[in-house]
Amino acid sequence: MFCPEILYRGEIIMATYKCSLERMTDKIKTFSKFGDAGHGGITRYTLSPEDKLAREEFTKRMEAIGAIIEVDDVANMYATLPGSDPNAKRIVMASHSDSVKNGGNYDGILGVMSAMEVLETVAEQNIPHKHPLTAMIWTNEEGSLYPPAMMVSGIVCWDYLPEDIKGKFKYDDMMKSKSVLDDQETFGEALDNSGYKGDKKYRFSRENYKYMFEAHIEQGPILEDAGLDVGVVDCVIGMFNYRFRLYGQTVHAGTFPMNKRQDALWGAAQIINYLHEEIDKLGHPELVYTTGEIVCHPNVHTCVPDFIDFSIDCRHESAELRDKVLDIVKSCADREWAGCKCEVEKQWNRDTVYWDKKLVGFVKEAAEETGVSHQVLHSGAGHDAQFASYVVPTTMIFVQSKDGLSHCEPEYSTPEHCTAGATVLLNAVLKADAE
Amino acid sequence: MFCPEILYRGEIIMATYKCSLERMTDKIKTFSKFGDAGHGGITRYTLSPEDKLAREEFTKRMEAIGAIIEVDDVANMYATLPGSDPNAKRIVMASHSDSVKNGGNYDGILGVMSAMEVLETVAEQNIPHKHPLTAMIWTNEEGSLYPPAMMVSGIVCWDYLPEDIKGKFKYDDMMKSKSVLDDQETFGEALDNSGYKGDKKYRFSRENYKYMFEAHIEQGPILEDAGLDVGVVDCVIGMFNYRFRLYGQTVHAGTFPMNKRQDALWGAAQIINYLHEEIDKLGHPELVYTTGEIVCHPNVHTCVPDFIDFSIDCRHESAELRDKVLDIVKSCADREWAGCKCEVEKQWNRDTVYWDKKLVGFVKEAAEETGVSHQVLHSGAGHDAQFASYVVPTTMIFVQSKDGLSHCEPEYSTPEHCTAGATVLLNAVLKADAE
Repeated sequence: MFCPEILYRGEIIMATYKCSLERMTDKIKTFSKFGDAGHGGITRYTLSPEDKLAREEFTKRMEAIGAIIEVDDVANMYATLPGSDPNAKRIVMASHSDSVKNGGNYDGILGVMSAMEVLETVAEQNIPHKHPLTAMIWTNEEGSLYPPAMMVSGIVCWDYLPEDIKGKFKYDDMMKSKSVLDDQETFGEALDNSGYKGDKKYRFSRENYKYMFEAHIEQGPILEDAGLDVGVVDCVIGMFNYRFRLYGQTVHAGTFPMNKRQDALWGAAQIINYLHEEIDKLGHPELVYTTGEIVCHPNVHTCVPDFIDFSIDCRHESAELRDKVLDIVKSCADREWAGCKCEVEKQWNRDTVYWDKKLVGFVKEAAEETGVSHQVLHSGAGHDAQFASYVVPTTMIFVQSKDGLSHCEPEYSTPEHCTAGATVLLNAVLKADAE
Repeated sequence: MFCPEILYRGEIIMATYKCSLERMTDKIKTFSKFGDAGHGGITRYTLSPEDKLAREEFTKRMEAIGAIIEVDDVANMYATLPGSDPNAKRIVMASHSDSVKNGGNYDGILGVMSAMEVLETVAEQNIPHKHPLTAMIWTNEEGSLYPPAMMVSGIVCWDYLPEDIKGKFKYDDMMKSKSVLDDQETFGEALDNSGYKGDKKYRFSRENYKYMFEAHIEQGPILEDAGLDVGVVDCVIGMFNYRFRLYGQTVHAGTFPMNKRQDALWGAAQIINYLHEEIDKLGHPELVYTTGEIVCHPNVHTCVPDFIDFSIDCRHESAELRDKVLDIVKSCADREWAGCKCEVEKQWNRDTVYWDKKLVGFVKEAAEETGVSHQVLHSGAGHDAQFASYVVPTTMIFVQSKDGLSHCEPEYSTPEHCTAGATVLLNAVLKADAE
């Protein structure tokens, strides 16, 4: 059924299309069963039995609308509706089907469901398009079972990645990545045994693909606080990740005087408070920094800790501001903390990656023309789209997240917000198709 | 060879005896091989092959001087030289042969070697004594492989322990304690397979034993700082152990604004600093408190921590002062820290346990009469002697520790200090024998 709305502002500007709330709701309900962890969320590791259920559902629904299914050599799945121009490259909409342990029903899979919804709407409404339109599942984005995160987009986009990123995603190394659950099965073995090891010729590539779009939950509270449906994402903000290491002396908790101790945990506590004081003085409320991981040795209640290793992750669009924070981080190594020597070591960093301006413009226009409330947002998290953007022009659309929660079972977006996101995606893709 | 020194201060007060530096040095060298971890220290878990080597050496050396060897049902070993009075109870000198992982060559085993040295000196010099004198090895004091610490003295002294301690050392529970290395073999199984499961009738008891002495390294720097050889220990100071638990919300490190976070690790850092500020205001430099163990969830560098659990161990002789510290600890639960709710939970506590005043006096006199420099000290650590003291009058002797280090490979006491400790032990035991 073909039922465009024609908007009139003194001239005919474009037909717009709407996705189906009912069909989107049904997809959310169905995919949420695959890996249901019993508390409202899922555990769906890549290539697990639960992930295969999601992949089978994807195949079933896409075949039902006449899409061609392809699987590449690293288990990425592609469902394509041909376009009217036999020479046109594909436009792909993609995200991932795997989750973290006890994750939610939206992170990743919402981008897959949105892509499916776009194709279903195009098929149902017989919407004309020149380019082949592809809904895609990226394998192992979370890296929860086989690290690192964004592993498979790293492999597939490898030729185009910056040199300092390439080293982290070498194919042979990735195949040897061991399961964090049993430290036995490798990702390569899981792939071989999955039934989803297809042909390398089907890989996402610059030769066959023109643009990539990714819809995703916001994973933050900005849209909800502003009462808006979707975010028009303009970039993934730059970041750095460093480790602090404190070296003290372990002594007995009952026998060693306080004034002679070198207590690495007290040193770490002092540094964490110092970081908050000094970084907050910079006065940039949109800057985020996190001390998320801490390791303590010997970690025994009757021993003064002699070693602490903790992480800092810092993100902001501005390289200049990130450098100011980095100066504060590095300055911690200049002195002793609770009698302990402190080392600061870089793990990695990345510059801000800007999305393709034209595609960002299409998303913004699509939101305006379909009456979906929106604002421009940065992405604070990494996504497969980030690596894809080195291959073809790429952009993202965010959907409002309840309480900004993600990577946890209470993660939630309303069916209405999810459908609005799919509608914006559909219309932005059609603009890209029509240009 | 019988060669007492007679001291004269207007009257003959007592013959004193000296232990052998050469023999003590040889014992230290020999026992340090059993579990040598290659960096100057040992790993000698209870009932391990390395511990059995130490037990065999104990047997060999004690049989060589004519001592009778007995082993009880929980692998405690007793080597006894009969005394002249056939009806007299035994005087026992005891410590443990097991170590922590990568521990030192002195903690525990020094008390065993000192007891052996006393018996060897008595035998060699044919020193007259009424009571049977026993050198003893306590099994599994450290609890490093099979928790808890002081397990076997807890089992053997169980009938006499305070009610609130009994619950932690029930025989059946102890036999089920699983190896922390493989979570498979239980302590009961290790005992059955050890070849050291003897007869319950040989257990240390009030019926057969009169006094217990334990020599041990100080595990602190007080004697070294004061330039003294040994410590005359008067008590094990009281302590409490509590846990802090902070409950936050895990959110994505890149997408969630700082001002809305509930960061459990930042909350913990604030509490640790608060504890240092407030407790130090009490102005008692001899008070010790330690935050030694910390657990963070989900402990991922890209996630704000939603849960932190950390320990506080606090020790001082005065119950009143400990209560003041406890008030500070408990007050942390009255407010939020970095947006996180805080709970404070008692794990256990113990009152100060005073050693038998008469035996403490014997140790002090023995040090004075043998010209060993000394001072009165509290013990900040728990020892098997603590549980033994509920069964028979008990006391301890400390030996100077280099840099106050213990439970680590650099742990060290000079052969001279170790021999001085054995000499004081010998003469204190002879005073107890002669009273």
